[in-house]
Amino acid sequence: MTNSSYQRFHFGLRSLFCLLLLAATFAVHARTTDPLPSWNKGPAKSAIMQFVNAVTKKGGADFVPTAERIATFDNDGTLWCELPMYVQLAFALDRVKAAAPEHPDWKTTEPFKSVLANDMKGLMASGEHGLLELITATHTGMSVEEFNQIAKYWLTQSKHPKFNRPYTELVYQPMLELLAYLRDHGFKTYIVSGGGVEFMRPWTEKIYGVPPEQVIGSTIKTKFELLDGKPVLMRLPEVDFIDDKEGKPVGIQKFIGRRPIAAFGNSDGDLQMLQWATATNAPHFALLVHHTDAEREYAYGRESAFGRLDKALAEAQQKGWTVVDMKKDWKQVFPGK
Amino acid sequence: MTNSSYQRFHFGLRSLFCLLLLAATFAVHARTTDPLPSWNKGPAKSAIMQFVNAVTKKGGADFVPTAERIATFDNDGTLWCELPMYVQLAFALDRVKAAAPEHPDWKTTEPFKSVLANDMKGLMASGEHGLLELITATHTGMSVEEFNQIAKYWLTQSKHPKFNRPYTELVYQPMLELLAYLRDHGFKTYIVSGGGVEFMRPWTEKIYGVPPEQVIGSTIKTKFELLDGKPVLMRLPEVDFIDDKEGKPVGIQKFIGRRPIAAFGNSDGDLQMLQWATATNAPHFALLVHHTDAEREYAYGRESAFGRLDKALAEAQQKGWTVVDMKKDWKQVFPGK
Repeated sequence: MTNSSYQRFHFGLRSLFCLLLLAATFAVHARTTDPLPSWNKGPAKSAIMQFVNAVTKKGGADFVPTAERIATFDNDGTLWCELPMYVQLAFALDRVKAAAPEHPDWKTTEPFKSVLANDMKGLMASGEHGLLELITATHTGMSVEEFNQIAKYWLTQSKHPKFNRPYTELVYQPMLELLAYLRDHGFKTYIVSGGGVEFMRPWTEKIYGVPPEQVIGSTIKTKFELLDGKPVLMRLPEVDFIDDKEGKPVGIQKFIGRRPIAAFGNSDGDLQMLQWATATNAPHFALLVHHTDAEREYAYGRESAFGRLDKALAEAQQKGWTVVDMKKDWKQVFPGK
Repeated sequence: MTNSSYQRFHFGLRSLFCLLLLAATFAVHARTTDPLPSWNKGPAKSAIMQFVNAVTKKGGADFVPTAERIATFDNDGTLWCELPMYVQLAFALDRVKAAAPEHPDWKTTEPFKSVLANDMKGLMASGEHGLLELITATHTGMSVEEFNQIAKYWLTQSKHPKFNRPYTELVYQPMLELLAYLRDHGFKTYIVSGGGVEFMRPWTEKIYGVPPEQVIGSTIKTKFELLDGKPVLMRLPEVDFIDDKEGKPVGIQKFIGRRPIAAFGNSDGDLQMLQWATATNAPHFALLVHHTDAEREYAYGRESAFGRLDKALAEAQQKGWTVVDMKKDWKQVFPGK
């Protein structure tokens, strides 16, 4: 072997060695890096990963092009904690209390009287009409930008009564991992919530990685106006759209215009969204989060008036949808602690 | 120089030479490839390119993060030909004629009587109420999927009366280039049209590269129903939202939840969208297409009742928005020919 041919040989050998090392590193990495570390091994985790593998396998029978990989998530109870009451309801109650000094009549007028007396039963007794008055008084009469600021600020100032942490920390760690896992595999992740869209948009990008244009929710009517020549969108005291139950597929079609291939919920309010996502011969996936963990979070869903999922659970069993047993399936519930 | 050191030197020299060649190739490529070849040199083309350069220049004073690069485009008259009548109106008239045998009463009932007699003046005389009846009769009473199929099929079968080409070929080549140019620079391109959203969605992805979830338009109400256990979304005979004039900023906020940084229109119906996009201290861009080319397309916009843009043109002059003079600024109007 001449000097130069030895050198070439040596160089080639070294390159080959480097390549092999690199390949080995990747292989080990792939084998050891779990994209869903807060999920315990079990049927729920397996079903998720099998579905994602199937729809992303090029040339596979169930392959779905990236553009069609739409996943829709309910928010309250699916991505963040919804007990002891919807976060947006806590916001409305706080807003009433803050504005009460300017409205002396509220002391004697429902539903405000009940709110100020912390009488939740009284509030509920005021029915849909009372709830609408509450929303009107606390969520309308300002511009969209002003409302976004109010909601965002309130969230930085408020804490959950049981966990004593900001609400935006009481998001489910396993679901954060699931959102990221789906996006890493070319999915577009959407929120489809009964909650107000403008209550969610100011923080969903930071907390969930879901940008404002991928948040679908209930809306109130807005009006374009020129105030001193400057355009504003004013929030009117009128409901535009309720994105719950039968409204969820309606909202999905209106905003996305495609059928999701995966849908995630936790209550009967999500049933129609799951029915819609799965009513196709194309690949699809449906998952329900069942809150079974009284210790780390709450156990509810079957009997309680709150977040009923009788019908959805029955249909899940019948149709083979995936049901998460929070206590069993989640290694960790909230981030950080 | 030893044999091996010469070889190393030679190898190094060759690598350097290859790199230089590559760099030179890219430089020439960058200098000669015009991203907007159908635009003539002039103030409109320059303004577009200056804006895109400014908002994409990292570290520049006007840099805008990718996530916020939202561009909204009107459709009729901005992206495709809107004369002698809106394409969707031509669709409705054809649908009435096709369904007429099943509706003998239409021969004597407005607005159908006028439609069947090709009496456009009579149709217009039936006013908003007549137009609503026309839409109800031709656009509702079927599922969303059925309607999408009907609209898609009609577009493959119909031709423009003057140009004798399918409507989907009568899109503006310079605007197709502009859409692609913006997307190549990280923009998300949206359609914000007064037209029906479900009339556009079946073809906007193929023709414009705009996916269904980035199409905002007028909507009619839909209802989620189980037909023989199978979920469908039925189109109801009721208007949900008119995405025109003051409705455009409302629709933009409802669907996107962010203010666009660039907006493109061609009539007074787009004025509020342009006002909304530009009412900010952040970088912004507004453009109006002025139809000045009676030979290659049509010349209209100032006096004609159709596509008025008196107010928008006046405001464009006052605020320095870009105005495209179709005859001067566009080298080519439609693709291919």
